[in-house]
Formats: sequence, C-alpha cells, structure tokens
Amino acid sequence: MNLTIEQAKEQLYYLQKKAAAYEHALGLIYYDGSTCAPKGTAQNRAQSLSVLSEEIYKITTDEKNIELLEFLDENKEKLNEKERRMVYLLLKDIREMRKIPMVEYVEYEQLLAIADDVWHTAKQENNFELFAPYLEKIFETNKRFAMYVEPGKDPYDYCLSKFEEGLNKKTLDEFFSKVRNGIVPLLKKISQVPQVDDSIRRGSFPEKQQEELSYYLMKLIGLDLDHVGLSTTEHPFTTSLGSHFDERITTHYHEDDFVSSMYSVIHEGGHALYDTGSADDLAYTVLDGGMYMSIHESQSRFYENIIGRNKEFCEYVFPFLQKLFPDEMKGKTAGDLFKAVNKAEPSLIRTEADELTYSLHVMVRYELEKKVMAGEIEVKDLPEEWNRLYKEYLGVDVPDDKHGVLQDSHWSGGLIGYFPSYALGNAYGAQFLNKMKQTVDFEKCIREGNFEPINIWNRENIWQYGGLYTPKEILDRVLGEDFNADYYIEYLNKKVNDIYSV
Amino acid sequence: MNLTIEQAKEQLYYLQKKAAAYEHALGLIYYDGSTCAPKGTAQNRAQSLSVLSEEIYKITTDEKNIELLEFLDENKEKLNEKERRMVYLLLKDIREMRKIPMVEYVEYEQLLAIADDVWHTAKQENNFELFAPYLEKIFETNKRFAMYVEPGKDPYDYCLSKFEEGLNKKTLDEFFSKVRNGIVPLLKKISQVPQVDDSIRRGSFPEKQQEELSYYLMKLIGLDLDHVGLSTTEHPFTTSLGSHFDERITTHYHEDDFVSSMYSVIHEGGHALYDTGSADDLAYTVLDGGMYMSIHESQSRFYENIIGRNKEFCEYVFPFLQKLFPDEMKGKTAGDLFKAVNKAEPSLIRTEADELTYSLHVMVRYELEKKVMAGEIEVKDLPEEWNRLYKEYLGVDVPDDKHGVLQDSHWSGGLIGYFPSYALGNAYGAQFLNKMKQTVDFEKCIREGNFEPINIWNRENIWQYGGLYTPKEILDRVLGEDFNADYYIEYLNKKVNDIYSV
Repeated sequence: MNLTIEQAKEQLYYLQKKAAAYEHALGLIYYDGSTCAPKGTAQNRAQSLSVLSEEIYKITTDEKNIELLEFLDENKEKLNEKERRMVYLLLKDIREMRKIPMVEYVEYEQLLAIADDVWHTAKQENNFELFAPYLEKIFETNKRFAMYVEPGKDPYDYCLSKFEEGLNKKTLDEFFSKVRNGIVPLLKKISQVPQVDDSIRRGSFPEKQQEELSYYLMKLIGLDLDHVGLSTTEHPFTTSLGSHFDERITTHYHEDDFVSSMYSVIHEGGHALYDTGSADDLAYTVLDGGMYMSIHESQSRFYENIIGRNKEFCEYVFPFLQKLFPDEMKGKTAGDLFKAVNKAEPSLIRTEADELTYSLHVMVRYELEKKVMAGEIEVKDLPEEWNRLYKEYLGVDVPDDKHGVLQDSHWSGGLIGYFPSYALGNAYGAQFLNKMKQTVDFEKCIREGNFEPINIWNRENIWQYGGLYTPKEILDRVLGEDFNADYYIEYLNKKVNDIYSV
Repeated sequence: MNLTIEQAKEQLYYLQKKAAAYEHALGLIYYDGSTCAPKGTAQNRAQSLSVLSEEIYKITTDEKNIELLEFLDENKEKLNEKERRMVYLLLKDIREMRKIPMVEYVEYEQLLAIADDVWHTAKQENNFELFAPYLEKIFETNKRFAMYVEPGKDPYDYCLSKFEEGLNKKTLDEFFSKVRNGIVPLLKKISQVPQVDDSIRRGSFPEKQQEELSYYLMKLIGLDLDHVGLSTTEHPFTTSLGSHFDERITTHYHEDDFVSSMYSVIHEGGHALYDTGSADDLAYTVLDGGMYMSIHESQSRFYENIIGRNKEFCEYVFPFLQKLFPDEMKGKTAGDLFKAVNKAEPSLIRTEADELTYSLHVMVRYELEKKVMAGEIEVKDLPEEWNRLYKEYLGVDVPDDKHGVLQDSHWSGGLIGYFPSYALGNAYGAQFLNKMKQTVDFEKCIREGNFEPINIWNRENIWQYGGLYTPKEILDRVLGEDFNADYYIEYLNKKVNDIYSV
C-alpha cells in the first residue's frame, strides 16, 4: 500500500462513513415501508433496495478496501483499541460477504422487501400458504449463505452467532432447559391460586391520549426527543438511521387496551437508550449503536420489565394515567396497575406475553428454527408444529395462524436466529440488576422518577461502548463473574411471590 | 465501444435504474426530514446526503457512462424516440454536472439539507437574520454553478431554464406585464363593490375530520391510494420516490380553517395525478413523471382552481362537508362555499392567496430573484424589498418576515427560478381548459363527480409522456396554436364576474 498509516486511517473512517450513509438509505426505505408508504409500493421499494444493496456489495467487497483493511490489520500496533476492532469487524464482514455471490445477495435483499409485504397481507388474511413460499426461500437462503460462509459449521449455529458472537445450540439448549425448569413450577403454583384482576387495562383509550402517554414515558426514561422519533406501525421496532444521532421507535395502539402500547414504548425506548448512548466518536463507524441483540434485548427488557413492571414505577406513573384517562381510572389504584401488568398466564402472542411466560414463547420459535434449519421439518409443517409446541410448553390452543405462526415479523425480515436473544436478554438483565444494586439505589430512583443514576450506570457500563466489545466481554467487564441464569429464575420467583403471594 | 447496440441499450436502462434508486434514497431522506424525523437530526441527514450525493456525482460523471451515452448518441437512428430523448437528457445533465467541481456539488447538497432546517426555525422565530447567511450561500452557489455550466448566459436565465427548457427573463417580463395589466383593473373593480362573505371557512375543524376530507378528495379526483400517500408537513409538497409507482403528497391542517388544507390537497393531488399518469414503461428512466415545473403547475392549479374552485365542484362536495362538519355547516350553502373559496382580495401569503391575486405574489418573488441574481440587491435587502413590492403590487403592509420573505420553503430548498412556473402554469391551464372543452363536457363531469373523462384527456395529452417532450412541444402538440395568456385573463374576468357581478 502506498499510504501512510494516517492516510489509511482516514480512509478507514471514510469507508465507514460511506457505509453508514447507505445503511441510512436502506434503513429509511424499510422504515418508510412500515410507516408512511402507500400499500401498493413494495415492488417499487424492492427495486431501489436491490440496486442500493448491489452498490453496497460492490463497495464493501472492493479489492482496494480489502487491501486497505489488511494493511491496517498488519499495522495493528499503530491503531487504538477502537480502530483495531473496526478493522477486525470490517474484515470479517467483507470476507464473509465475498463468499456470497453478489447476485444471490441482491436477490435476497429483494426477497426480504417483498416478503415483509406478503407477511403483512398473510397475517391480515390469516393465510399462511400465501407467506410459505417466501418463508421457504428465506430459510433456504439462510442455509445456503451459512454454507458459503462457514461450510464446516452447523447452519443454525452460524445464524445464532450472527446475532451474538460465539452463541450456539449447545449453550442455548442448556440455557432453555434451565429456564423451562424454573418457569414451569411457577406456572403450576399460579394455577393453584386465584388469578389477579387486570380489568384496569381494558376500556376505551383514544389513540391521541395514548400518544401523549408515549411521549411522557419516552421523556421519563430519559430519551432525548430531539434525536428519538416515534411512529406507529403494525409491529413495534427500533432503528437507527445513519448514526445514533437519529433513532426511531414505533408502537401500535390498541384503543381497548392501553397497556400494550405503553410497554411497547418502554421496551423500544430501552433499545433506543442503548443505541443513542454510544459515545459520540463512534458515530459513522461500525461500532456505533448497540451491536449484539442479546445485550440489546437485555436493555429493552430491563426498561420494560425490571423497571416498567416494578411496583414503584406503577406508583410513579399512575397519577399521569389518572389525568389522561379519568373515567377509565376511576376507582382504580396503582396497585391494580402493578398486578395487571404482571398478571402471569399462558397466552398466544409473544409481544403481549407476561414476564414469566415470555421466554417460553421464545423457546417455541427457537425449537422451530432449529428444526427447519436442520431439515427435520419443512416450512409447510410450521403451523402444525407451532400449535403443538404452544400446547406442550404453554398449554394453550392456537385458534388460527394469525395468532400463531404468522404473529411475528422477524422471519419475513430474514432474522433467523434472532429470537433466542430475547430470552438471553431477560437473563442478562436480571444479572445486571443485581450488580447495579450494589452501587445504585434502584428502587429510590424509580420511586422518584429519577432515571439518571440508572441511565448513567448503564451508559458507563454498557451503552457507551457500542460494538467495541463482544457480549461475553461486556458480561465479564460488567459483572466480574460468569453469566448465570439463576439470577433470572430468582427474579421471577420473587415477582410471582409479590403478585400471587405463593 | 465494445458493445452491440442492444447491450448498450441495456446499460442505458440499467444506468437510469441506478440513478432512480439513488434519487429514491435522497428524496426519501428529504421527505423524512419534513415528516417523521426528530428535530435535532438535520446534521445527521446532511452527513448521509453529502455521501450519497458524492456517490451519485461519481456515478453520473463516470467516463464509462459518457462513452456509453456518446456511443448511443452516434447511433441515434437505432434508438426509438424515448431512448433518443433519454440519451439527450442524460448527456446534457452529465456535461453540465462535469462542469461543477464535485466538492462544490456535495457542499451544496449538504448546505441545502441544513438550510431547510434553519429556515424552519427562522420562520418559527420570525428571524430572517438567522436564515440570511444560508440564503446568501444558496444564491451565490446558484450564480457560481450557472457560470460554470453556461458562462455566456445570464445566470438567472440559466436558473429559469432548469425548470423550463428555453425560458428566460425576456419572455417572463412580457408575460408578467400582460398578467399585471389584466389583473390590476379587476382588483380595482372588486374594490368598488361589496366584498363576499367567507365566514363558512372559519370555525372549528378537527384534524381527524380534515384528514377524512383529504382522503375523500384524493379518491374523488382519481388518485390511486395504493400508490399515493398523504402526510402532514409545515409546507405542502409532492414527491415521487424511486418512480411514479410511489408518490407522496403532504398537507398542513389549520383547525380554524378547513379551506386551506382542502385546496392544498387538491393542488398537490394534481401534481400527483400528473406524475403517476406517466406511461408505465417510463418508470426507472429519466423520462418518468412530470419533468417541467410549469406544466406541473398547470396540472396542480388546474385541479385546485379550474376544477376545485368551480361552482359545480363546490356543489358536489358540499354534502360531504355537511356530513363531516354538521355544526359548522349549519345554515350554509354550496353557494357560500363557492363564494368563499373565490373571494379575491390582496393578502400576505402566497399559498393562501386567491386565484386572482395569486400571480402577483409570484411576480414579487420573480422580481426579487431577478435582482439578487443580477447583483442589484443583496440578500440582506430582501425583507425590505419584499415588503416594498407587496405594497406596490398588492397594496398590503407586511407585518413581519414570517408573513413575508420567510413564508416559502423554495429558497431554502435551492429552487431559484422555480416560482414563475406557478404563474405560467395558471396561464397554460386556462388554455388547456379551452381546448379540453372542445371534446369533453367539463361542467357535466364535475357536476356528476366523474373525473374520468377529464383525467383521460389529461393523461392522453399530457401525463403519459412524462419528460419525453419539452413544455413548448407539449403546448404545440396539445393546443395546435401558440401559447396565449389571453385565455387566462379572460378566465379570470369571467370568474370575477361570477363572484362579484362586476
């Protein structure tokens, strides 16, 4: 290379700035597809996405970039820690990308753009057959790409490690077995005592007031509304556009139940806190924002459950709910809210599931992905297998695919291997809480609606680093002990005891 | 070139498809900035826009593309009419673009992204000084780019011809003088008779009902809602994203006056009809959608005024208004609506101006742009000159810059030379109407709420061709006679007579 290290570093940053701009464009086209776009425009988006993906592919896999990165890799000692990590991640990405033929990569992007649209229709019309051919192609492509990139590795392990470096079926099988053994006895206990009354959540809650609640909650948990936007979509999600300086969360309002959107907003708000908490000098680099999904979910579910479903939190927000919905809250108390949002019972919809049963919903998806990726079942068998596992794990009968296999957007978005992050995130969060409580008066913060000490702890320990460390490194640095799902089981036991006095 | 004509043609289409994808991305980033984006994110958008503009610049001015286009140009006889036009326009664009240094082009795109944000704040805070440095740079860049591209040409003529091939100050001076001579006597006549009562438009009109009205109007005039979306923004506009298959219009609701958004929607709807009326085989080429702004405005203002402010139209929509706003419409008639939306009186805000005085608002902007571009006045003098001309042409006193020089978004968007298109569009529209009436029973269509015959006429004569013909060619083909502003003056005379019986 005819470059000095300084010139090469400059190019390294420019390369990432360019990638960030393309990601901004692609991300926004997807975001627009879920928010503003008229419903007949998916094909048009697919056209643009395919062109832009092809451009990214060409830019990313360009020989000159690889030379640049290899040159920097050979001169590692002259790079700082962040730059070394950037070079490592970029090279890894390029080497993987180059193993996938461009035409297949572009076709896959195009497929996803259309699949999302088809999934929407299929869900609306309760028609799995409509979606099946697309889902088949998605699974098939994931298998194929896994074979291209790591031919020696199990394809599903490859998918899992995309979302969490080093994660595999072996680890997850053990983890889920522990989780299941912890949760099932609790569910049994609950079934033997009177169920709590959750009537507080039902009634008539106009979208306008619910939107007000959304902004109130976003501000309360410490989001900077100058940099975090809110929209409504079929399925709530969070995305960064260009950098952590522009973050979007979405929600879905149900006018007969305010709790659904309320906790969506806190959940997505947790994702947004994590992303926007990146150190500013990470912006426009690959390290910007939260990179690993289990850590991401540990944050989103920390805010949603550990904070949002805490007794003190319910007490803090209740007066605001009374102001927003005076008629519906008449005669109700903060204690009613606390019980309602913690009511544990087997149900059909993951995003609406209570804290206790949630990880069982995730297990179903994990088992199904594992089987399809291993060729043990076919996509066409998914509805039946889904329903069977819901009966087995949760004891519920799935009435139709809309409330079953078609409920989530993840598969249509190509996110095979993502679901386990939710359950891992739950467990990480419980262990983080234990550690945080050693230096932060957690309950007092919530009681006073003062999230700053909690956010500072999270920012200092987790958020600021973006993608600088792997999940394992983050856990090691923060916890000073091994990951241990017992904290999670213990946390659930305590919660069930608080609510059901069992 | 080592290509067959067929291969070269294929590359020609691919090149345009690529450009369309980049335009989609850039257009969407701007659209998002006006619709969903949190307010602190302009800098972040500017970053991505600058990278993507640089990429477009590189792609567009790539030596290989020029070789390709020149090869096709040399083999014109083997191309069809559309392909010849594509090659002509692309070569023209590239040759112009190559005269502008890339760094300046990119800086300008970045400037515009920020200027739009600054303009929003400046307007809100009634602070022209905040916006002035940006506007200076915008005018200065327009002058500089004009010198780069056509050094022999007057810089403002260059700006004008960007929006309408061949347009210049000489033509416009004559046109505006005719317009002014036609309008001023009418204004004088009106001032001598009692003013009409427009109280029907004032009251309390919730956004939700107004939104319902928007969708009703969009459907009524024949927009395909599967491909045309509606959002709210500070300043209404229309944009295509990627192709005419995805069109967006925006509006701004004033809860104390439903007429404002109502006619915005019809206006932007006219733009959208024109864009989406392109022949489908023009999609993803430079010929897609309406290309010239005067023709564009002829369509938007045809729907807004010639149709929307027609007596039959007011009668047709009135029952729907009664249903939407039963209290506010009590005791009112369609005739009241007709009078209210045609009330002519000198005013401050262009977008709210009546049909009669509208072109005078445009004249003010034309005169000011002409003077700044000629160096006769400076940007800092604009507020004073603005206010002086409003007094001179319209006889009104401008109370502050928010209601004066800061009212429009065009300058912050870099659209120097655009405004005259509005006035030309008015005049073209009146002449189109005269021609249309020879074969279409115009009043009957509107009376019956059946826009199909009108839309078919426009589609066959104008829309389907997209950018295939220049405005002059369109006028020649459609009218079979020269452009003549007399039709417009005559139309205004008749309208004033209907409303004021003068």
